[in-house]
Amino acid sequence: MKSIYLDHASTTYISPEIVDYICELMSTQYGNPSSIHAMGRQSRALIEKARKIIAKILNVSVGEIYFTSSATEANNMILKRSVIDLGVKTIISSPTEHHCVLHSIDKIVKEHDINVRYLDVDTNGDIDLDQLRELIDQNKINGQVLVSLMHGNNEIGNVHPLEQISEICTKGGALFHCDAVQTIGKLHIDLQTTKLNFLSATAHKFHGPKGVGFFYMNNESILSSYIDGGAQERNIRAGTENLYGIASLAMALQNYCTERASRVSHLLDIRNYFEEQIRQHFPDIVINSQGAKNRLPHISSISFVASEKAEMIMFNLDINNICASSGSACSAGIEEDSHVLTAIKHPKNRKTIRFSFAPTTTKEEIDYAIETLIKIS
Amino acid sequence: MKSIYLDHASTTYISPEIVDYICELMSTQYGNPSSIHAMGRQSRALIEKARKIIAKILNVSVGEIYFTSSATEANNMILKRSVIDLGVKTIISSPTEHHCVLHSIDKIVKEHDINVRYLDVDTNGDIDLDQLRELIDQNKINGQVLVSLMHGNNEIGNVHPLEQISEICTKGGALFHCDAVQTIGKLHIDLQTTKLNFLSATAHKFHGPKGVGFFYMNNESILSSYIDGGAQERNIRAGTENLYGIASLAMALQNYCTERASRVSHLLDIRNYFEEQIRQHFPDIVINSQGAKNRLPHISSISFVASEKAEMIMFNLDINNICASSGSACSAGIEEDSHVLTAIKHPKNRKTIRFSFAPTTTKEEIDYAIETLIKIS
Repeated sequence: MKSIYLDHASTTYISPEIVDYICELMSTQYGNPSSIHAMGRQSRALIEKARKIIAKILNVSVGEIYFTSSATEANNMILKRSVIDLGVKTIISSPTEHHCVLHSIDKIVKEHDINVRYLDVDTNGDIDLDQLRELIDQNKINGQVLVSLMHGNNEIGNVHPLEQISEICTKGGALFHCDAVQTIGKLHIDLQTTKLNFLSATAHKFHGPKGVGFFYMNNESILSSYIDGGAQERNIRAGTENLYGIASLAMALQNYCTERASRVSHLLDIRNYFEEQIRQHFPDIVINSQGAKNRLPHISSISFVASEKAEMIMFNLDINNICASSGSACSAGIEEDSHVLTAIKHPKNRKTIRFSFAPTTTKEEIDYAIETLIKIS
Repeated sequence: MKSIYLDHASTTYISPEIVDYICELMSTQYGNPSSIHAMGRQSRALIEKARKIIAKILNVSVGEIYFTSSATEANNMILKRSVIDLGVKTIISSPTEHHCVLHSIDKIVKEHDINVRYLDVDTNGDIDLDQLRELIDQNKINGQVLVSLMHGNNEIGNVHPLEQISEICTKGGALFHCDAVQTIGKLHIDLQTTKLNFLSATAHKFHGPKGVGFFYMNNESILSSYIDGGAQERNIRAGTENLYGIASLAMALQNYCTERASRVSHLLDIRNYFEEQIRQHFPDIVINSQGAKNRLPHISSISFVASEKAEMIMFNLDINNICASSGSACSAGIEEDSHVLTAIKHPKNRKTIRFSFAPTTTKEEIDYAIETLIKIS
C-alpha cells in the first residue's frame, strides 16, 4: 500500500513539472556559472533569471537575493555575521524558533559577548508585541539590536504578525530577521510594504528540491560572507552554485505563487475538514495554536489525551502507512519534549502529532487517516 | 555547433546513469531523513548507504564521513572550527591553495589571534618538504599547528605528495587538512595508510551534481558544527539533507573508482596527445607544472607567448565553441593575474589557458581544439 503522506511541513514532494525541469537541465546544462565561456554564461543566465523571479515575488531588488544550500545555512549566516559585521549587541528572539536559529544563538553566546532575550509566548505560541517594543527600547542603549522571529511556526502553525513586528523594529531602530520557511509561497509577502533586513527560505517546503535555499538581505544591512572562497553570489556566498537547485527553486516558488489562491484555499479546506473530523471523533483532543491570531493553512498540531494507546499513536500510524510527525522533524527521534511544546506550556501528559498537508492532499487521505486514528486509539 | 568542453576541472557533466538515478529518486523518494516514519527511514537508508560507500572507498569508519553542500563549505568549517575547537594557533598552507582555503584563512586572521605561514612553491607549484618540517617544528611551541594543503592543484595540475606530508605532520604533531577536490576518484587515497585529520571533496568534479560535497573528519579531531540547527550528520552539519545530491554523489564516486584504471588511462592519453600536439604546433609555449614531481591526469595549463592574438585567445576559443578556462573558474572574470600563476612566478607577459579533460573527451575534440588554436594564434 502506498503511504499517506501527511508530513508536508517537514519536507514535501518535488512537483512533477519541477522534476522534469531538473532532469532536462541536468542532461543539457553543466557549465560553471563563474566561467566566462558560452556554457558558463548559459548557467549564469539561469541563475540570474532565478534571482530575478525571487526578487519580483518579494518585490525587492535583484541584488538583494542570495542563494544558499538551505534556510538553516542562511539563518546561521545572518545571525552569526550580524554580530561580527553589524555590531549586534542584543538578539531578541522567541523560544519557539527553529533549532537552526536557537542553536546558532547558543553558539554565538559561547563565542561572543552578546545579550540574548527571549520573548514570552502564550499557549498559542503568540508573542506580546508590547514586550517586543519594550525589550528593543531597553536594550538599544547597549548597541545594535537584532530581532529574529519566524513568520509561521513549523510545529504548531501559529503565524506572527510580520507587518507589526516590522513596524516595531523600524521605529525602535532594530534589525529584523525573519525565517519565512513555512510561509513563503503560501502567504503574500511584499518587502516594499513590510520592511525587514533579512528573510530566509528553502525550496523543499514549496515543492522544489532539498539542498537549496535563499535569503533576502536588505542593501542597507550587508553582511560579509559566512562561507568564504570564490566570488559567487557577489562575494557573499562562495562555492560553485547549485545550478539545478537554484533554477528549480525559482520555478517552484513562481508556480506556488501563481497558484497561491487555489492552493491555499485547498489547504484550508483540507485542514478544516481534518480538524472537524478529528474533533468529532476525538472530542477531548486539543488543536495547538487554534486560538492564535493567525494560523498556517497547512498544519494541524493535535494533542491527544495521554493513554497507553496514545503513546503508541506514531508507531501505529506508521504501521498503517501514515506519515506524520511527532514534534518537528529536526528534533524527531530525540525522546525529549519538543522545545516549542514546552514553550507554550503544553501539558506533559498529552501526546502531540503534527499533521501537515499539501495542495494534493485529498479528503480520501484524510478519511483514511481519521479511520486509522479511530482504530488505533 | 555543439560546444567542445575542455573545462572539466572547473565543473563537469553529470554522467547519464547518475542523471537517471537522480530523476528516479526525485520522482519517488522525498521523506525527510530525520523523520521516523517509513518514508523518512527510506531516505535515511539512502544517506547511510551513501556514507558507507564513501567510507569504504577511503578505507575509514562510516562515522568519519560528513556531507556538506560543497568542498568550499567543508574547507570553511575545517579551517574556522579548528581554530576555535582544537586550539589551532598556527596554520601552515601554500599560496597556491584554492580561494576557499586562502580566503577562509584571511577571515580567520581578521577575527582571531592566529599565526599563518605560507610555504614557498617552486615554478612547478611544488612545495619544499624540509621547509614544511621546519615550519611545524618552529611553530608547535606556540600551540597546535594545522597544515592545510591541497592534493592536486586545480589551476596548474601539480600533485602534492600526500603520504610524505602526512608523515611529516604526524611526526611533527600537526593536524593535516587536505582539499582533495581535484584528485578524489582519479587518484587512489587510502586513509588507513595515509593518516590525515580532514579531507574534503565535491561531487561535481567526478560527474555527480553541483551543490553537494563531503568531508572526512578523523574521530580523533572532532570539530563542532559550523552550520548549527537540527541534529543532522550527528550534530556536525545541520539542515535537511540534500537527499538526491548525497545518494548520487556516492554513486558517482563509486563509479569513478570502479573504472579508475581505464578512466585515468584515457585521461593521460588525451592529455599527452594534447600536449604533444600543442608542443608541435606551438614550440614556444610553456606547459605549467610540467616539471612537477607528480601531475594530475586531466589538466594542461598552457602559457602562450604574449602577443595581440594571445590576448584574444580565450575570446576566440569561445567564438569557436571551445570552452576552456583562463585561470581557475572561481577567479575568472576578474582581470587580475591568478594567485597561483603569481605564486609560481609565471612570466606576466604570457597568456595562460587551462584545458581540462574528462573520460569522454575524444582525440577528435583535441584535434579541433588544436586546429582552432592554430587558426586564431
